[in-house]
Amino acid sequence: MRRLAIPLLALAGLAGAQTVAQNNPAAQAARAWRETHERAILGEFLGLLALPNLARDTEGIRRNAAAVSELFEKRGVKTRLLEVPGAPPVVYGEIPAPGATRTIVFYAHYDGQPLDPKEWATPPWEPVVRDRDLNKDGRAVALPAAGKIDPEWRIYARSASDDKAPLAAISTALDALQAARIAPRSRIKFVFEGEEEAGSPHLAQTIAKYKDLLAGDVWLICDGPVHQSRRPQIVFGARGITGLDITLYGASRELHSGHYGNWAPNPAMALARLLASMKDDDGRVLIDHFYDGIEPLTETEKRAIAEAPEVDAGLMRELSLGRTEGGGRKLVDLINLPSLNVRGMASARVGDKASNVVPATATASIDIRLVKGIDPATAVRRVLDHIRKQGYEIVGTEPDAATRIEHPRLARVTVEPGYKASRTSMDLPISQLVLRTAESARGPVVRLPTMGGSVPLYMIEDILHAPTITVPIANHDNNQHSFNENIRIQNLWDGIDLMAALLAM
Amino acid sequence: MRRLAIPLLALAGLAGAQTVAQNNPAAQAARAWRETHERAILGEFLGLLALPNLARDTEGIRRNAAAVSELFEKRGVKTRLLEVPGAPPVVYGEIPAPGATRTIVFYAHYDGQPLDPKEWATPPWEPVVRDRDLNKDGRAVALPAAGKIDPEWRIYARSASDDKAPLAAISTALDALQAARIAPRSRIKFVFEGEEEAGSPHLAQTIAKYKDLLAGDVWLICDGPVHQSRRPQIVFGARGITGLDITLYGASRELHSGHYGNWAPNPAMALARLLASMKDDDGRVLIDHFYDGIEPLTETEKRAIAEAPEVDAGLMRELSLGRTEGGGRKLVDLINLPSLNVRGMASARVGDKASNVVPATATASIDIRLVKGIDPATAVRRVLDHIRKQGYEIVGTEPDAATRIEHPRLARVTVEPGYKASRTSMDLPISQLVLRTAESARGPVVRLPTMGGSVPLYMIEDILHAPTITVPIANHDNNQHSFNENIRIQNLWDGIDLMAALLAM
Repeated sequence: MRRLAIPLLALAGLAGAQTVAQNNPAAQAARAWRETHERAILGEFLGLLALPNLARDTEGIRRNAAAVSELFEKRGVKTRLLEVPGAPPVVYGEIPAPGATRTIVFYAHYDGQPLDPKEWATPPWEPVVRDRDLNKDGRAVALPAAGKIDPEWRIYARSASDDKAPLAAISTALDALQAARIAPRSRIKFVFEGEEEAGSPHLAQTIAKYKDLLAGDVWLICDGPVHQSRRPQIVFGARGITGLDITLYGASRELHSGHYGNWAPNPAMALARLLASMKDDDGRVLIDHFYDGIEPLTETEKRAIAEAPEVDAGLMRELSLGRTEGGGRKLVDLINLPSLNVRGMASARVGDKASNVVPATATASIDIRLVKGIDPATAVRRVLDHIRKQGYEIVGTEPDAATRIEHPRLARVTVEPGYKASRTSMDLPISQLVLRTAESARGPVVRLPTMGGSVPLYMIEDILHAPTITVPIANHDNNQHSFNENIRIQNLWDGIDLMAALLAM
Repeated sequence: MRRLAIPLLALAGLAGAQTVAQNNPAAQAARAWRETHERAILGEFLGLLALPNLARDTEGIRRNAAAVSELFEKRGVKTRLLEVPGAPPVVYGEIPAPGATRTIVFYAHYDGQPLDPKEWATPPWEPVVRDRDLNKDGRAVALPAAGKIDPEWRIYARSASDDKAPLAAISTALDALQAARIAPRSRIKFVFEGEEEAGSPHLAQTIAKYKDLLAGDVWLICDGPVHQSRRPQIVFGARGITGLDITLYGASRELHSGHYGNWAPNPAMALARLLASMKDDDGRVLIDHFYDGIEPLTETEKRAIAEAPEVDAGLMRELSLGRTEGGGRKLVDLINLPSLNVRGMASARVGDKASNVVPATATASIDIRLVKGIDPATAVRRVLDHIRKQGYEIVGTEPDAATRIEHPRLARVTVEPGYKASRTSMDLPISQLVLRTAESARGPVVRLPTMGGSVPLYMIEDILHAPTITVPIANHDNNQHSFNENIRIQNLWDGIDLMAALLAM
């Protein structure tokens, strides 16, 4: 399928947003350094992207941890691996600042989303530079040996954006600050996680175990995309997430659809009915109590949302959409609601692999995004209650024949570890400082109460009692969580400037 | 997933059905020959099964045609390949019978259902003999060099049942008849097709082109399974079939479910709603006029259905089913209705390959079984009308961005070639002769107006004006049209006896 795109800078008439005058000395130093080291910066980054980084690939993920440690040790940052059993290590680093009264923790993650290599145009861990977006027929190009690199070029690889780009931006910013002899005013800590895309199952344990080491006045979460207008964006929260796979059963084996169709129950059709019962045509979730308990937005937050640039019409064009869900409400508004999303569906085969069978099973994979006031267990319980209300018996493991016969409506549900949402007040002094610093480095900033995506910020609030503020750098059209993930080089350059300013803050 | 099964001979208390006294000399000769040649018969059969036989694999399918020709040439049958452009050849053969007043045409097909090798326990074209059903943990065994072979053993390979088993049965029956010096009383013709599982797109053309050559008083269709009770079965019709794939569209690429969920329309959920609108919970099709025009059954046909052994309860146990569709009506009754079956469904990924995306597309593959009175075009038109009534614009090819934006509800539908149902009267003299012959060879026979499955019998009626009667030999639990297709060796033995009797009829 050919994908289409409209030039994104045309989206909101903000084409000049990247060239604002910087009045932040750290950001100015970063730009100067970067302009004379572009080839070396990208060379080091491409090396990092060449390391397969699935959290469940125990050996591969440790090679990443070692590479990330080395990246920072090279800049004189003392690092160590924080270990808990069964988890990829957290790479921890520290830059002391004698006499500093503030500690700033920079968080990122070095693992990447699971993937199916067959869907990628080029292998996910063989980084390719392209002269523009692949959706606009971007062609592979070689980096020039010297000279300026076109900042609209993109780098394609798993984690190019999510979330190795911040690692490259921070490490380059450190080079720039050292070259300009700008020392951080605050004590700096780095926390780089290795299983964020697996749902951060051990992060709470790690934070609890290393509570004193990880304490800080603020955690800056270096993850996620900037605004769709390409303007910088500071985000004060993240949605929580949980997920579940639902498998329904027909006969114990696939059956010939001629000999048994009309008689053997079809699990694909049953799944269709079950899913259809969960949401209406406009995307509103019909599950009882699904929206109960949402913590309301403050006036500051509502104002920030109202001031966010209008992007919906442009995004619809870019994404070839003739309609949206949500009753006409804007995207920036809708991400403040919980969501229930069918992220995948499978039963037997389609297309030229289809055969005339009544499938034996049908599976839907669902993710649920959570907002403040609804925890994962509550959201999952509401979904399970709904499935039961449709007449299903729920089991957690593959059912035996007796169970299948006893319960003609049987759903196997596997729930993945989830976590709750988090939101820092925009009115805190540290929130104001981060906003001022970002604007001095990068110009007017879009400020949002929450990002649509999820990072496990709640743990930091719950265990360390530190506020979190998200400072993303990736382009919004980076295909993170899908195939052909990429980063636009200008976003990396801008990210270096921003990180330098925040490091020196 | 472990699959379970109940011993099938317990199904209807008919365990003795296979050992009925034969009073048919041809069948007796066949049994005597087989009992002394079991190893050689299976050796030749395994060689035939080792040939990959997908209709679309042009080279592979021609190797099968050559092997089938050789199988019959070895028995002194003069064969030739009937060709039309773009089609696998039909293998035609003839045994003259000077002075014969009747011509009997034996039809089978040598191509196999499409498949996904990853789903198979062993490669589909590397035949494996197992000591029992794989669902009962059957283990691979070597054929003994001599001595009787356990007839409950099974042979696993694509087309082991569907439809190379009849080729082995007929060729072996010819050996037996020649050894016993029993000459066919009728002129015998063989028609072996090479693209039945692709919907027989060129068979009508072939029959029309070779109309005189293919004329006969009856076509015996050697395809499909015997009765679930393991009793022999003669079937007087087949359902027609058509199929379609429906693809619905979300955004032009997969989107991060956090950043765009609640806003970007989800095609998997839309597909669920569309499918759910097509059938009720009991399997009744809700599409307007879907059941209109069905040709009613005759009194003889109704009586035959009423006399068919009761198998539903046993089948439900075997298949681990706690319920069936169809309002409590029996399977044998329900196959006389048209069906609409979701044979596959796919959208993004599930299980450990799932990622948190709003899928870009969702596809359902549907097959429709037809009965006398409803042709494929009519059935498809009813489904398309239904899709339009749900608000969808239908296109036949991949839509461009402008089309997607203009039609927020857009369905790409690809319709596969189909064919109509067929039914021969049980009261014809030739029908009565076939029934008497089969009963003399194999004991009491289940007689059915139609099989649930589809074979393109209508062409024979329409072009050649010859009645068709289906004489199946495979076990019903052969996994045809799915992975791990197999034949139970006793079914092959019984099939040899039956084919010998029919050849000598």
